[in-house]
Amino acid sequence: MANYDELFKKITAHAKEYGFIFQSSEIYDGLSAVYDYGQNGVELKNNIKEYWWKAMVRYHENIVGIDSAIFMHPTIWKASGHVDAFNDPMIDNKDSKKRYRADVLVEDHLAKLEEKINKEVEKAAKRFGDAFDEGQFRATNQRVLENQAKIDAIKHRLYTGLENNDLSDIKKLIEDCEIVCPVSGSRNWTEVRQFNLMFSTQMGSVSEEANTIFLRPETAQGIFVNFLNVMKTGRMKIPFGIAQIGKAFRNEIVARQFIFRMREFEQMEMQYFVRPGTELEWFEFWKKERLKWHLSLGLGEDNYRFHDHEKLAHYANAAADIEFRFPFGFKELEGIHSRTDFDLGAHQQYSGKKIMYFDPELNESYVPYVVETSIGLDRTFLALLSNAFTEEKLDDGSERVVMKLPPVLAPIKAAVLPLVAKDGLPEKARQIMDTLKYDYNCQYEEKDSIGKRYRRQDAIGTPYCITVDHQTLEDNTVTIRERDTMLQERVDLGNVSKIIAKKLKVN
Amino acid sequence: MANYDELFKKITAHAKEYGFIFQSSEIYDGLSAVYDYGQNGVELKNNIKEYWWKAMVRYHENIVGIDSAIFMHPTIWKASGHVDAFNDPMIDNKDSKKRYRADVLVEDHLAKLEEKINKEVEKAAKRFGDAFDEGQFRATNQRVLENQAKIDAIKHRLYTGLENNDLSDIKKLIEDCEIVCPVSGSRNWTEVRQFNLMFSTQMGSVSEEANTIFLRPETAQGIFVNFLNVMKTGRMKIPFGIAQIGKAFRNEIVARQFIFRMREFEQMEMQYFVRPGTELEWFEFWKKERLKWHLSLGLGEDNYRFHDHEKLAHYANAAADIEFRFPFGFKELEGIHSRTDFDLGAHQQYSGKKIMYFDPELNESYVPYVVETSIGLDRTFLALLSNAFTEEKLDDGSERVVMKLPPVLAPIKAAVLPLVAKDGLPEKARQIMDTLKYDYNCQYEEKDSIGKRYRRQDAIGTPYCITVDHQTLEDNTVTIRERDTMLQERVDLGNVSKIIAKKLKVN
Repeated sequence: MANYDELFKKITAHAKEYGFIFQSSEIYDGLSAVYDYGQNGVELKNNIKEYWWKAMVRYHENIVGIDSAIFMHPTIWKASGHVDAFNDPMIDNKDSKKRYRADVLVEDHLAKLEEKINKEVEKAAKRFGDAFDEGQFRATNQRVLENQAKIDAIKHRLYTGLENNDLSDIKKLIEDCEIVCPVSGSRNWTEVRQFNLMFSTQMGSVSEEANTIFLRPETAQGIFVNFLNVMKTGRMKIPFGIAQIGKAFRNEIVARQFIFRMREFEQMEMQYFVRPGTELEWFEFWKKERLKWHLSLGLGEDNYRFHDHEKLAHYANAAADIEFRFPFGFKELEGIHSRTDFDLGAHQQYSGKKIMYFDPELNESYVPYVVETSIGLDRTFLALLSNAFTEEKLDDGSERVVMKLPPVLAPIKAAVLPLVAKDGLPEKARQIMDTLKYDYNCQYEEKDSIGKRYRRQDAIGTPYCITVDHQTLEDNTVTIRERDTMLQERVDLGNVSKIIAKKLKVN
Repeated sequence: MANYDELFKKITAHAKEYGFIFQSSEIYDGLSAVYDYGQNGVELKNNIKEYWWKAMVRYHENIVGIDSAIFMHPTIWKASGHVDAFNDPMIDNKDSKKRYRADVLVEDHLAKLEEKINKEVEKAAKRFGDAFDEGQFRATNQRVLENQAKIDAIKHRLYTGLENNDLSDIKKLIEDCEIVCPVSGSRNWTEVRQFNLMFSTQMGSVSEEANTIFLRPETAQGIFVNFLNVMKTGRMKIPFGIAQIGKAFRNEIVARQFIFRMREFEQMEMQYFVRPGTELEWFEFWKKERLKWHLSLGLGEDNYRFHDHEKLAHYANAAADIEFRFPFGFKELEGIHSRTDFDLGAHQQYSGKKIMYFDPELNESYVPYVVETSIGLDRTFLALLSNAFTEEKLDDGSERVVMKLPPVLAPIKAAVLPLVAKDGLPEKARQIMDTLKYDYNCQYEEKDSIGKRYRRQDAIGTPYCITVDHQTLEDNTVTIRERDTMLQERVDLGNVSKIIAKKLKVN
C-alpha cells in the first residue's frame, strides 16, 4: 500500500511539473477538491473528448449530441429525485470538529476487518505452501469465520439503515463498532444528519422573485428534458441515443484522490432510448460496446473489470460499473445503467407534458426506456495519466520518466528538433514544422542538448520526435524517434507527414 | 426595424425547428436567458471552438491553452475588482414592479432623441436631393442642434454619475428626462441601487466553515492565476499567450436578444503577456490578427467594424471591440483590450506571491503587461446563424430556406442519399457512408423524395449532398450537389472522399 501511495504522489507531482494538472487557485493556497488543466492537460482532455464523441456520435448513426446548459429549471431536480434524495449522511466529531460521511466511517471500519481476514489467509498460505486451499480455509477457520460474520452483520445494518433513512441506527452502529475519529481519537459523535450535495444559487434580481436554482449534479437530466425536442427536430426513430459532454457539480464532503473525486467535474454521458422490454438486451449491448472502447485505448485488459450492482438505485432495473485499476485500487470509471422509464416518466408527471414516442411498428405510443452510459472525463484522464507514467532505467545507467500515452491522445503528436541551433538546421526544422502544424499539435524546440529535449518530450508523452541533423542538409532525410522504444529510423523529409499520419491512424 | 425583428424571429424559430438552439428547460416553460444547443447546434459550436483553438493555439507556437475550473478562490474576485465593482445600477418602477437597468433606461431615451435627429436629416435629404450636405445641415439646423445639445448633456451626466457612483443623480436624471416605465407608463421610481452580477454559492459543509464562492463571471482570471504555473512548466518566453475556452456566468438584469446576452455563456479568451512598453504595438497586432480570423469565415467584410473605446475600463490603456452587424444592429462580438499589469499586479498584491517574469534580454524582472482578446462563443454562433439564414425563390417558383454556413463549420459536412430506397441503391450509399463517416460528420437519409431531402439538408446547412442513383450501379459514379449553387457534378465514386476533402480544405 505504501508503494502505491508513493507512486500516486509521484504521478500527481509529475502532472503538475509537466503542465497537466494544477491545483485550482494555487497562488491563493488552493481551493479544495478543484483542479485546473494545464497546457498539456487541456490537450489530452480535449483529445479524450473527441475520441469519445467520435466513437459515440459519429460512428453510431442513430446517436446525436447536445450541449445543454448547467442552469436548469429547479423543478427538474425535484422530478429527478435529487432535491429529496441526493444526500450523504454526515456525522461530526465533537472534539476534533471534523465532519465525516457516516457510511464511509463504517466502510473504513469494514475494510479493517477485511484486512484482518486477509492477514490470516496470507499467514496460512505461507504456512501450507502449495497445499493451501483458500476456499476451505475461509470456510473453516474460526477467526476468519467470526470476522466474516461481523462484517456481514455490519454491512446488513448499514445498508438497511441507509435504505430506510434510519440515521439514528447508523449512529448507533458507529458507536457499537467503537469507531473513533481519526483525528481526535475520541468517540464523541454528534447525531447523523443528511446533507444535500447540490450547489445552489439565486437567479434573477430580487424584485422579480429570485429563484433558487441548482448547479446540475449530473448532465443526464439535460438530455431527458430535451428528449422531445431532439426526437422531433432530429426525426429520430427508436432505438436512438443522445450524447453530451459537460460539467457537473457536487458538494462532496469527502473529496479526495486528486482528480478522482472533485467538486467540479466533467461527464460524458449517453442516454439510449429503447422500446420497453428490450432494455436488458441493450444494457448488455452497451456493456460490451463501452468495454471495447476502453480496450481500444490499449491500457491493458487486466486493468478493467465489470462490477455488477446488487443493490440497484430506485430508477434502475440493471446496473454495472466498468472499474479501472487505479494506483489506489479498482474504482468506478464508467457506469452503465438500465434506468427504465423513471426519468422520462417523472418529467412527464412534473411538467404536465406528454413525453411519449409513437412506435410505427407497434402502432402505439409509450414512454421509452433508457439505457445510460456515463463516464467520468476526469477519471478517464486520471486512468490514462497513471497508466502512462513509467520510470525506466536505461542501458547506459541513466533513468527516464516517460508518459506512455496512446499516441492518438497524446497532447503533442510530434516534436521537431534541430540537432543544434545553428548551421541552417533550425531553418530546415521550421520548414517541417510548417508542413505538420496545421494537421497535428506539434512543438518546435531548439534549446538544450538533444538528449535533454528527448527527455522533456518523453515526460509529456510525445510519441514522435523528428530530428534534423547535418545529414539532413546533404540528403534531405531526418530521423523519427519513437517514444517507447527510443528507436530511430531515418526517412525522407518529404515522407514525414505521411509517416506520422500513418502511425497515428487508429481503427 | 419591423423587418429586422421579423427576420430575427424567423431565425430563432428556424434555430429551434432544425435542432440548433432550444430554450433551456422548455418542457418546464423555460428558464429565462438560458439556452441549450441541439443536435446540430452542438456540432456547429464544437466546430467554432476547434476553428478558434487551431487559429490561436496551434498556429501560434508561443500560445498554449489551459482549462481552468469555474470554481475559484473567492479572493480572486476581490483582486479583480468584481466583488466591489461588477455591478449594474438598477431602478424599480413602483407601479409595474418591473426592474430596469438605470443606465439602459437613459440610453433608450437617448436613442429616441437620436432618432428624432435622424428623421430631420432624412426629411431634409429628401427635400434637397443630390444637393444635400448632411454635415452642413447637422451643424446649422436649429432642431438638430437643440436635440444634439440635449443628448450631449444627458450623456455627460450619465457617464459622470456612473463614474462617481452618484446613484441619486442618475435617479434625478431619469426624472429630469421624464422617462416613463414602458409597462406602467408611470414615473413612480424607486431609488437607484447597485446590483452585483456574480452568482454565488456555498462550498463545503457547514462545520468546516462553508465558503461563499462565485461562479466565474469571466474566464480571464483563470489564466492570470495560472500565469506562473504555465510560464514555468511550459518554459514560456515573453511574448507568449495563454488561451482558454469556457463557461462564464452573469446574473444579467436585462438578458435578451436570444443567445446574444445569456446568464450562462461561453467565452474564448487569450491573454498575451508582453514586455511593458510594447503593449500598444501588440494591441494593434491583435486587432489586425483577430479581424483577419473573422474575415476568414467569409461572412462579408461589410459586416464587421472596429469600435474604439473612448472611455476605458480602470484596468485598460487601450480597448477596441470588433462589432458584427447582427439583425438588430452592430454589436460587440469580440473585445481586444490592453489590460496593462492590472490583473497580475492585483493578484500579486492579494496573494502575496511574486508574479514576475525574468527577462533575460533586459536582465531584469517585471510584471508583464497583458493584451487580451475575448470573443463570445455564443455570439459568434449567433453571427453565423443569422448571416447564414437565407430565404430563396427558385426558378421553378418554389422557395427554400438555406443555411449558408461556412462549410468548414457546418454541422454535417455531407449527406449520403440513395435516390430511392430500393434497387440496391441504399447498399451502395451505405458503402460511401462507411468510407466517409470516420473523417467527417455525415448523415445517411433514405426517407422521402430526393427533393425533400435536399431541402432538409439545405435547412441545416449541409454543404454537399452525395446522391446514389441507378447510373451509379452501371458506371460507379455519383452526383455531388453543392448547397449554395444547387449545381450537381457527376464524379467517380472512388474520388468522393478526396473531392470532399479538397472542398473542405481551408487555408
